[in-house]
Order: sequence, then C-alpha cells, then structure tokens
Amino acid sequence: MAMVTLLTDFGDAPYPGIMKGVILSLAPQGKVVDLYHHVPMGNVTLAAYVLYHSFRHFPPGTVHVAVVDPGVGSDRRVLLAQVAKHLFVVPDNGVLTLVLGRLERAEVFVFERWEFALPQVSATFHGRDVFAPLGAWLARRVPLPMLGRPVRDVVMLDLPCPQWVEGRLVGEVLWVDPFGNLVANIEREMLGEHRFGGVLAGRKCLPLCSHYGELPSGQPGAIWNSWDLLEVFVNKGSASMLLGLKEGDPVEVLSHVME
Amino acid sequence: MAMVTLLTDFGDAPYPGIMKGVILSLAPQGKVVDLYHHVPMGNVTLAAYVLYHSFRHFPPGTVHVAVVDPGVGSDRRVLLAQVAKHLFVVPDNGVLTLVLGRLERAEVFVFERWEFALPQVSATFHGRDVFAPLGAWLARRVPLPMLGRPVRDVVMLDLPCPQWVEGRLVGEVLWVDPFGNLVANIEREMLGEHRFGGVLAGRKCLPLCSHYGELPSGQPGAIWNSWDLLEVFVNKGSASMLLGLKEGDPVEVLSHVME
Amino acid sequence: MAMVTLLTDFGDAPYPGIMKGVILSLAPQGKVVDLYHHVPMGNVTLAAYVLYHSFRHFPPGTVHVAVVDPGVGSDRRVLLAQVAKHLFVVPDNGVLTLVLGRLERAEVFVFERWEFALPQVSATFHGRDVFAPLGAWLARRVPLPMLGRPVRDVVMLDLPCPQWVEGRLVGEVLWVDPFGNLVANIEREMLGEHRFGGVLAGRKCLPLCSHYGELPSGQPGAIWNSWDLLEVFVNKGSASMLLGLKEGDPVEVLSHVME
Repeated sequence: MAMVTLLTDFGDAPYPGIMKGVILSLAPQGKVVDLYHHVPMGNVTLAAYVLYHSFRHFPPGTVHVAVVDPGVGSDRRVLLAQVAKHLFVVPDNGVLTLVLGRLERAEVFVFERWEFALPQVSATFHGRDVFAPLGAWLARRVPLPMLGRPVRDVVMLDLPCPQWVEGRLVGEVLWVDPFGNLVANIEREMLGEHRFGGVLAGRKCLPLCSHYGELPSGQPGAIWNSWDLLEVFVNKGSASMLLGLKEGDPVEVLSHVME
Repeated sequence: MAMVTLLTDFGDAPYPGIMKGVILSLAPQGKVVDLYHHVPMGNVTLAAYVLYHSFRHFPPGTVHVAVVDPGVGSDRRVLLAQVAKHLFVVPDNGVLTLVLGRLERAEVFVFERWEFALPQVSATFHGRDVFAPLGAWLARRVPLPMLGRPVRDVVMLDLPCPQWVEGRLVGEVLWVDPFGNLVANIEREMLGEHRFGGVLAGRKCLPLCSHYGELPSGQPGAIWNSWDLLEVFVNKGSASMLLGLKEGDPVEVLSHVME
Repeated sequence: MAMVTLLTDFGDAPYPGIMKGVILSLAPQGKVVDLYHHVPMGNVTLAAYVLYHSFRHFPPGTVHVAVVDPGVGSDRRVLLAQVAKHLFVVPDNGVLTLVLGRLERAEVFVFERWEFALPQVSATFHGRDVFAPLGAWLARRVPLPMLGRPVRDVVMLDLPCPQWVEGRLVGEVLWVDPFGNLVANIEREMLGEHRFGGVLAGRKCLPLCSHYGELPSGQPGAIWNSWDLLEVFVNKGSASMLLGLKEGDPVEVLSHVME
C-alpha cells in the first residue's frame, strides 16, 4: 500500500485532518504524510517549487496530493499524473510546472470519472471531496487510464526567469521562509562559467557563505540552500526584516567569467 | 488495530506530540492521526462543530480523542461514548453536543476506572495522563463498560440558534477560519421552503455564489460551504477584515417563500 | 520496525515533511511521529527540556531525531546516543543535556561514517541530509558503533539553576508557552523540606493552585505543571501579557521550613 503526501495552503485549518479521514477510509492500510500545509494562500508558484524539491525524497510509488487551489468549485480541471515513478493528484493550475518541465516521460490525465469522487462534491472543499479520494484510489493502484483521459495541454506557470544584465544575474525573491530567509529564483547552475562575485540585495553587497554560522550574529550573507537556490540570510536573524525585502523584490548576483 | 484521532486547542505546543507517545506506547500497532490542534483556546463550541463534521469521514471504529478542556484538573468528568460506530473520549463539557444531538443510539459512559489512566495524573495535562491512555485502550477494544458507568446527564452546549425575524433568518458568525472566511451557524436545510434572497453581513448585501472564483478578487459573497453552513467570503481576501466582522456578529439570510 | 520522532525549530516550514520522505524512503516500514516543530528558532535550551520531558512517553526503542541546530553546516559534530533504551540523533550543541545529565548508562557516539548520510550534504539542511537518514538507519537497528566512535566530551548546556536567596528560591522564566503560560525552571523537588509560601512574579504575589479553574477568569496564579515545573498562569488568559514577563525574567518561590 502506497504512501500519500498532502501539500496544501490550508495552514492552521482542520481541513487536512478531514482529508486524512477520507483517505484512510478508502485506503485503510495506507500511510498519510503531511508534506506541507503552510503554502501561503493561493501561492501556486511556491507550491510548485515545494512539490518539485520534495517529491523525489519520498519512495517511488508515493502519491502526492497537492491542494493549492484558488479555483476550487470552478470548472478548472483535476489532473492525475505519473512522473518518474511518482503519482500526482493536483488541480490544473500550474502546480506541476516544475515537475513536468524538468522530468521526462510524464503521463498526464484529466480526471473524468466522477464516480471515484465522494458522492456529494461541495463548492469549497475539493480537497476532501475529490483530491483525497483520488489519492486513496491511486494508493490502491487504480490505473490512471481508468480515472480519466490523457491530456497534453495542461496549465503551466510562466515563472519569472533570472536575466543577465551587464554581467549581473538579476532574479527575484521567490519566498520569504518562516525564518525570514529570502529564497531567490536563482539556481546554482545558472551561473555556468561565471565566477561568483557577490550578491546584491536591498542595496547591500553580501558575501557568499558556506554555512550560516560563518557570519557574526545579525550579519547578512548569501548561501546556496538545500534546493540549490540562492538564499539571502541573516545569521540568527531575519533577512526579510533587516533588508526590508519581500517576495518579488530583486536579488542580483555579480559575476566574473572564470578564467 | 483502530485509528485514534486527536482534536485539541494545543496549537503550536508540544503536547500533541507527547500524547502520541503515550498512545503508541499503549497501542504500538495503532495509528494516530492529527485531526486538528488549532481550535481557539477553550472554544468548546467550535470543537463540537469540527468533531461533528469530521468524525464521519473516518473509518467506523475510529477513536476520536478531543481535548478542548478549560476545566482540566477540576472535577469535570471524562466521558467515553460510542455513536454511529465511532468511539469518543472527551471531557464532559459539551464537546459532544452536536454528535449526540443529531445521531441516535449513543452509548455514553462516565470514566471511573482510574487505573486505566497514567499512574500519575497531573493538574494541567489530562490529555497526556487521561485522554491519551483511554484513546489507546479503546483502540485496543477495551469495552466501554469496563471503564466506567453509563450516564445520561451529560453537559450539552446551549448553541445559539438562528431565528426567523420578519422574513430574515438571523444567525451569527460561528468561526473566522484561518482564511478570514466567516462561517455562520446557518444551515442550508434551515431555509426549508424559503427561496434564497441574499445575505446581509456587515451592512452589505451579498450574492449567493456557487464557487469562490465566481466573484472578482476582493469582492465579498456568500456560499454554502463543505459543512453545509453559510460562509461569507472574499475572493482571494479576508471577509473578516473587509467587513469588520468577528465571532458572534450577526449574519442574515433574506428570503422569499417559494412559489 | 521502530518509531522515529522529530523535534525541530522548523515551525511552519516544509522541512519536516521532506525529512519524513527521507526517513520513509530508507525505512519504509517505519513510523514517523511529529513530536514538536515549533521550538523557538535556535532555542537549544527549550529543545533540551522538551526532549527530556517527552521521550520517556514513547515506547522503548524509539529513535528521537532533534534538529535545533544553529550550527548547521559548520563543523559542529553529530551525536548518536542510547540512553534508557531510547536512541537519539542530535547535533552536539547541548540538546541532550537533560537526557544525559539525569539518566545513567548513556552510550554516546560521534557520527563519522558519512556514507550513511545522503550522497550530497547541503550547507543548510542537515535535517534532510544527515539527521533523517541516521534516524532511519537507527530505526532499522544499525548498531551505533557501526556509525561512529564513542565519545565522552559532548557539549553540555550551562543551564541557569534556581538559587536560594534569603528564604526565596529565585528562578527564571524558561518558556512562554503558546497559551502565554510562564514555565519557570523551578522544579517541585527543589523545595525539599521547605513549605510553599507563595510565588512572586512581576511584582505580584500569586497563590499556588491545584488546577487552572480554581481562580476566576483573568486572575493569575501558579501551579505545578505536567513537567513538575512551576508555571505561572492566568485562568483563560495570558500570564505573559498580564504580568509583562518574558523568557529570562525572574520568578521566585517564598517558603518556610516545614515544621
């Protein structure tokens, strides 16, 4: 029996608990794992990043249910996907953008067989009525083609892409994490042949560090984080507060071509 | 081995984790599921609603442990109940009001066999010392009559009931959920033969919507939510902030008799 | 297959979910239990208290993974320990102070066999890359000596110890819990032969109560809590707000020698 992970923006609401009940009623031998419930409300972009950087750490065959779903109750579609031996149940709103964009051999289906949802589907809680039961059926290995039809035109996010401007790689803050760290959309491999020459954030030039404790308390720096994204931090403090930066604000890497 | 759900007002405290240890020590094969830990402190009414609208989504035989217990350490009683094939362990403070009031064939017992609690019972944490062990014993199918004596006079909440006033059904805000949605105590079936004519909340007349996204961002509306309760919302916003409403404030449904 | 508990200061971040994936990939039959994730950021002292007062409630053989780790990415060591039939995986920063200081027969090892960590160890998330895999291996009963070498000089916190001053036992606030209760570092047994004569906190003299509800709403009092520590509370309110006290502020017990 497979594992089912839950990724939502339900925060401190009772809805994830109710979803667990639905899943465990339909798949009593299953194991439900809270992946993350504090995606900022409706932030599909961050959900896409969390999903992409998390799913691979679970065992092959895991079912990932992601309910960051501002379109709940509308006619937005529900997708079922198999990618890299993992299964996904998501609204068709772009939350699979990174998973699909970077991994080959995806099989994606639009959910159509509503007899696999709960008998009554509410207007406000498809997590309970649609996504949870589908997660349970996939955990019980109901084949995807039995639940819908193949689809190719899924919604993909138009993610902001860092740009090279006069020798600077200009990205932006993707996420202020709960510690106040500023996670930028700049990936380590984007530097390519360039040599790291410092980070500009909030008018300050910051050093690249190898660990948080390298700087004195209260000092800001930059680091390649666990997702290989550039992160601006303050040792034992909040970079967001100190530098006055929030999501969408620019972060730049200065560089030199390697010699 | 049955499942044990936990419903508490412990919020971001370590107490649910400790309860899990106690349960899994006594019932190692059991499965503990976090139902909800962010009931506002001491809000037995909301706990009663969450419990009622959640328990049925779990498999029959599930043990539901609810510790919203402002009377901890006093002589308030501990109840054990079997209702609709589900088992409950709760303080006798009304948290079972909706479960007992709407479902037949409840069997309720007062806990009396203190040798089934932990050897030392603290003054402040009966969740650990009393409720968790009882949840474990019920998961292990210790019969209720072995733990206490039948009782009929359990505490019931005097829940505010919406009233018809000059063609308007006047209820109140039961809960401001973590999204700022205003969940009212008005149930869909209370409308009976009446035709829905709009919602009055915070001096605004709001339309009834079929899904959140039906309105432009920032606009308030009303919807029947996943518990079949009337919910006042703002698409991609907080109804509580926009309308300046909080728990206990009035929400009214305008109506016409169906022709 | 053993249970693995997680104690972190990750709060509302996605990192605990990712750790669960790593553990369940390496120990698919294991059970991961969230002990507590809202230790205030970097507060090793509170983590030490939570760990000490929680671990004993889990079954013998449980693996406790504690990642409150301000030194992540530096050369601080990683410890593996067996104490009182429980297993621990922690950074060498004092988080085991109470567990080791009060229990005999501890076996402690420094982790050295990095082939048991994930292949790539990031600079910012040893919870995922080091602690989670070690938790999984211990759950699978890999012997500690296979993972490192015995060590004796582990980091121990220099915890503030209450002092007797002119008949008063002067301690301090250890933790403001999520309810606003002030948990002091004064243990019940420290009173020894003395008779309890009241509590001084924030210039008020407070009575010792047997349960929270003994006082009228809004009134402050003191109580021996579930960890046998002195706790200053306000019935249905926040002692921290009412008394204006925070972590580190003094709390005093007045006493008389028992006759």
